[in-house]
Amino acid sequence: MKLITFTHNGIRRIGAIEDFKVIDLHAAFKAKLESEGKLRASQIAEAYIPADDMNGFLQGGKESLDFAKQAIEFALNHESAVPLVFDKSEVKVGAPVPSPGKMICVGHNYREHILEMKREIPPYPVVFAKFANTVIGPEDDIPHFPISDQLDYEAEFAFVIGKRARNVSQSDALDYVAGYTIVNDVTYRDIQRRTLQWLQGKAVDGSAPMGPYLVTTDELTDPSGLEIVLTVNGKERQRSNTANLVFSVQYLVEFLSNLMTLEPGDVILTGTPGGVGVARDPQVFLKDGDVVRIEVDKIGALENRVRKVSNH
Amino acid sequence: MKLITFTHNGIRRIGAIEDFKVIDLHAAFKAKLESEGKLRASQIAEAYIPADDMNGFLQGGKESLDFAKQAIEFALNHESAVPLVFDKSEVKVGAPVPSPGKMICVGHNYREHILEMKREIPPYPVVFAKFANTVIGPEDDIPHFPISDQLDYEAEFAFVIGKRARNVSQSDALDYVAGYTIVNDVTYRDIQRRTLQWLQGKAVDGSAPMGPYLVTTDELTDPSGLEIVLTVNGKERQRSNTANLVFSVQYLVEFLSNLMTLEPGDVILTGTPGGVGVARDPQVFLKDGDVVRIEVDKIGALENRVRKVSNH
Repeated sequence: MKLITFTHNGIRRIGAIEDFKVIDLHAAFKAKLESEGKLRASQIAEAYIPADDMNGFLQGGKESLDFAKQAIEFALNHESAVPLVFDKSEVKVGAPVPSPGKMICVGHNYREHILEMKREIPPYPVVFAKFANTVIGPEDDIPHFPISDQLDYEAEFAFVIGKRARNVSQSDALDYVAGYTIVNDVTYRDIQRRTLQWLQGKAVDGSAPMGPYLVTTDELTDPSGLEIVLTVNGKERQRSNTANLVFSVQYLVEFLSNLMTLEPGDVILTGTPGGVGVARDPQVFLKDGDVVRIEVDKIGALENRVRKVSNH
Repeated sequence: MKLITFTHNGIRRIGAIEDFKVIDLHAAFKAKLESEGKLRASQIAEAYIPADDMNGFLQGGKESLDFAKQAIEFALNHESAVPLVFDKSEVKVGAPVPSPGKMICVGHNYREHILEMKREIPPYPVVFAKFANTVIGPEDDIPHFPISDQLDYEAEFAFVIGKRARNVSQSDALDYVAGYTIVNDVTYRDIQRRTLQWLQGKAVDGSAPMGPYLVTTDELTDPSGLEIVLTVNGKERQRSNTANLVFSVQYLVEFLSNLMTLEPGDVILTGTPGGVGVARDPQVFLKDGDVVRIEVDKIGALENRVRKVSNH
């Protein structure tokens, strides 16, 4: 499945996208339950597939995902008094996980990016944080606040936790992953670098465009071997393949879950390939109107325009 | 007010503590509304003072705080069929903010700690993150997982955001603070230092004992001039005063809200004084059974025992 969040008539819902059809998963599951004569259809649907809470839906695990598949099947094959299916053009698609409990970013994880930053292959992953205030959707603009001129992009392949994870081994790791998406780890480069810790350059509002889809692990079974390409205004700036990750998805699940409990809806960004603006010669940063596009095999394309905004 | 969360008969509630009396704020407000003949007492009480959601309560801002004061007054002066007031000994007190949306930590913020770590007074605050998985309460043990022998304490004076804040000036800053509490920023020191970024040594489950109270700003009006003392097994290890903070609460609200939107329930740890275990000569780390106690003027004492646990 390709999971999304979307807004229609100002109301946010979680959904799935098939071709250009958007299915309202809660409404579809509720309609299916009603068609079976269930009197508590609304409550049961909310329990397994909350109308607008992606983290809650992911907490339901495989059971909720199976119900979602049944709901899609039902919605595409039955008439309904309430709309269950929309054309993609009718809705605004948001970030698939709008409020991650944790956003954990891995630095220095593609071999060639490590070399361009003049660092050595690390023995441990370098991890740092973003917060949920950074998340915007695939149809949103990237706000450029007047706090720095060094706005930079970082194409990232990301995975989303689907099951509470503590001390999970690499061999079991993918059972704990709900699916994969794309995140642009937008960075105010000088602010990142003005102290020892990177957080302040990484935590600015709107600095994590995410999406367009959360592709579930039944559809995308192998997170390795996926080409990742970033362009600015159509010109290629970053290109690599998830096969080049120093620390794989499986390794990261083991590593992180050995330190902390990972929860459904936590988002882990696996790092960025070489070619970021600050490491180019000459350096080049994002400007008002620039279009940043990240494509990852089997997921799709995340494209956002940079928009200069005032700070107030 | 001294706000808390507490558990009674397995049910978590938000409350206030006066002397050794614990008031269930939701139940008390509901009882007050019922005594006034309100038919929607339960729903109105849940809207303004949710039964067990401190972040939701803080989102209610000054209006909810005023209702809480009325509720306390009512509970202490009226008989009620349902229990509104408990003895402190009947309940387990939890962290006042069990699920912060953000936990932002300031490094190197007491002049003498900066010197002991052999660093210079920084031009900008160094900030890094913890996540909500680290939070435990004042009656919980600090788990020591077998991932490192270098478990260390850091006494921290912390403030909690009470109103959404973006681009707030220092002069307005305290209007955006709900109150103050104590956090022990427990750190696995070697894990903190094995990469450039500190997060992995700071994000371990249970590494942020918090409490015992969130003292609101009407009771604690000035965050400066508060003595902060940490002892291990009764021996003093850290002592300073919030007057020695390089970056004050007001400065941090302005600095952080210039980068990101701060939300009610976000917790900001203002940094630790000199005297951490890793900087002592000889170095000394926490062991099974050690009792770590942090006292801050006008807030109280946060005392937790270290308990060695297996990783599984």
